[in-house]
Amino acid sequence: MIEVTVRTRNGAYPVLIGNGLLQGLPKLLTEHVTAERFAVISDDNVAPLYGEELLEAAHAVGLDSRLFTFPAGEASKTRKTWSILTDDLLEAGFGRDSCIIAVGGGVTTDIAGFVAATFLRGVPVVQVPTSYLAMIDASVGGKTGVDAKAGKNLVGAFHPPALVVADPQSLATLPREERAEGLVEAFKHGAILDEAYFEQLNETVVALLDADTKLSEEAVCRSVKLKAAVVSEDELESGYRQILNFGHTLGHALEAASGYRLGHGKAVALGMVLEAELGERLGVTDPGTRERLEVSLKGLLGPTSNTPNPAESICFLASDKKVRAGKPRVVLLKKIGQVDPGDRWSHELPEEMLEGVFAAVLGVL
Amino acid sequence: MIEVTVRTRNGAYPVLIGNGLLQGLPKLLTEHVTAERFAVISDDNVAPLYGEELLEAAHAVGLDSRLFTFPAGEASKTRKTWSILTDDLLEAGFGRDSCIIAVGGGVTTDIAGFVAATFLRGVPVVQVPTSYLAMIDASVGGKTGVDAKAGKNLVGAFHPPALVVADPQSLATLPREERAEGLVEAFKHGAILDEAYFEQLNETVVALLDADTKLSEEAVCRSVKLKAAVVSEDELESGYRQILNFGHTLGHALEAASGYRLGHGKAVALGMVLEAELGERLGVTDPGTRERLEVSLKGLLGPTSNTPNPAESICFLASDKKVRAGKPRVVLLKKIGQVDPGDRWSHELPEEMLEGVFAAVLGVL
Repeated sequence: MIEVTVRTRNGAYPVLIGNGLLQGLPKLLTEHVTAERFAVISDDNVAPLYGEELLEAAHAVGLDSRLFTFPAGEASKTRKTWSILTDDLLEAGFGRDSCIIAVGGGVTTDIAGFVAATFLRGVPVVQVPTSYLAMIDASVGGKTGVDAKAGKNLVGAFHPPALVVADPQSLATLPREERAEGLVEAFKHGAILDEAYFEQLNETVVALLDADTKLSEEAVCRSVKLKAAVVSEDELESGYRQILNFGHTLGHALEAASGYRLGHGKAVALGMVLEAELGERLGVTDPGTRERLEVSLKGLLGPTSNTPNPAESICFLASDKKVRAGKPRVVLLKKIGQVDPGDRWSHELPEEMLEGVFAAVLGVL
Repeated sequence: MIEVTVRTRNGAYPVLIGNGLLQGLPKLLTEHVTAERFAVISDDNVAPLYGEELLEAAHAVGLDSRLFTFPAGEASKTRKTWSILTDDLLEAGFGRDSCIIAVGGGVTTDIAGFVAATFLRGVPVVQVPTSYLAMIDASVGGKTGVDAKAGKNLVGAFHPPALVVADPQSLATLPREERAEGLVEAFKHGAILDEAYFEQLNETVVALLDADTKLSEEAVCRSVKLKAAVVSEDELESGYRQILNFGHTLGHALEAASGYRLGHGKAVALGMVLEAELGERLGVTDPGTRERLEVSLKGLLGPTSNTPNPAESICFLASDKKVRAGKPRVVLLKKIGQVDPGDRWSHELPEEMLEGVFAAVLGVL
């Protein structure tokens, strides 16, 4: 088992990573969390895989726990689902001495985290990510939230977990395509911070897609260490943490313009290539960076079809969270493994260049 | 102008109190807050009194601001109103560099604070309380939230304001009854912390009900200082801050059982008398305390009628936030001006005694 520490404004929390850790979860809870009752939140895909088993194991070590489920999928990541879960917890008599256990992918960790952030003005949450995206991204860093009409993750709170437990063995239960989309964030970590890791991912991509147990554990550890270092530096994204948004300004716009039919990973992959193309055109990003990204991400995802209309995507940029003084911002690479510092780690998005950038990239990937 | 500082986990914020301060609000904003755009949130009673004027004054000093309103009343303090306000802000293009200005009573400061706590994972809020309740209670201490089916304030977040600006002159625009209900919290501050203040309130109650400008300013200052000291000590209510819940365990239950037809102030007043009676019966509270509270609060509120059924009220105790290990908790006085330390400042509620306590008090006040 590897333990990575994430520092926060008011303390720190451990991320525990190791194959087989899920079996020992109730014991880890007793060691790390003080609570009278545990509310396990899962979607209806993940609950049958881990939920009942976890309740039984928790009961065996004397923990009072109960399972709350919601329908799987991004369409559930709404204020409505959050309201229902909150009301269900209240009805079941959960009080301030409760702890939420989020078991699942990014939708679950985000929504259960937001339930925890707002339940009786905040109770602890333990994040138990079971997907790549959740392990290396969503569960680490304290971001919680739900989607709104105007876009994804627009309503939420920073609510650092009490503990994160990641068992890479659970990745084997994911559809291969979901593993591929989750690994996009791993490539992003390499692209912004660690060229050697980026290359290692290229070399091991086939084994990672096949859920090789040992290599998956290694990748999760390396990504979590990179992400933990960034969010420990700037928990509330006032500056440096923004580098994690590489690929996300244009990626989110594509995702929104597709009516969320384009998967998050694929959208961010396209976003990274678009933002590299933009960076090269601006003379900020080293020439050839876009091509390296494009080759790597094509190797990971295969060809992407049905990308949304560029003009529509551009319309969605205005509602992005990464707006400063009314202007959308974008993170640009210096080169693979390094972000350009820009102005507080981002650049104003030159909207007049977007049409050309979209034309140069879309249809190619 | 008096400035009271409230310490938080991550810094501190000033509470500015003074007659006439509202006129200079935009200038105070430029001095205390960094934001590109200001969203003023008010209910449709308060907006006509202060909203338009504030926008004009803000515009005059170069601040970009916009007014968002919602229907006045506790019935609006819901996740639905919060959702609508959030969506309206998003639609108007507000970004992370926005600041929320809450102008109004406790419903407004709570709901606008919760909008700020969750908008794009948190933007600053400036609290501009215009009622007694909001000035001496709701706007100070960072509690924000909305009501749920199961009870009041069950969904929310701790989100300390960037600044609080209280202008006691605005109290003159309140209905006399609302001033009376707000002053219940002032009597509570005296009852838990400061006997001399409790007596001073008794002596000046008629002038305060008449909105005497100078005495109102004095009372607001004294109450804010008392509350600020408590919440600076224990921002997240893990211990000492619970003393502010005196009167609220049984008060909330009465309020809920009445379907919220009983006003908050009246409910808390009854709650204080009930909890003093309980404390005396338990031998925790000095004899005669209940009577002093009862006489004072009757002087403030007059006779209370239409109190809800005790048995129903008792049912609502289970969904109180102040539950520990599944048991409701109650704050008990040692005497006027002093709380009994109990176990971390509260006592387990002896439910078997409640019927007798309710019978002894209700109908009498």
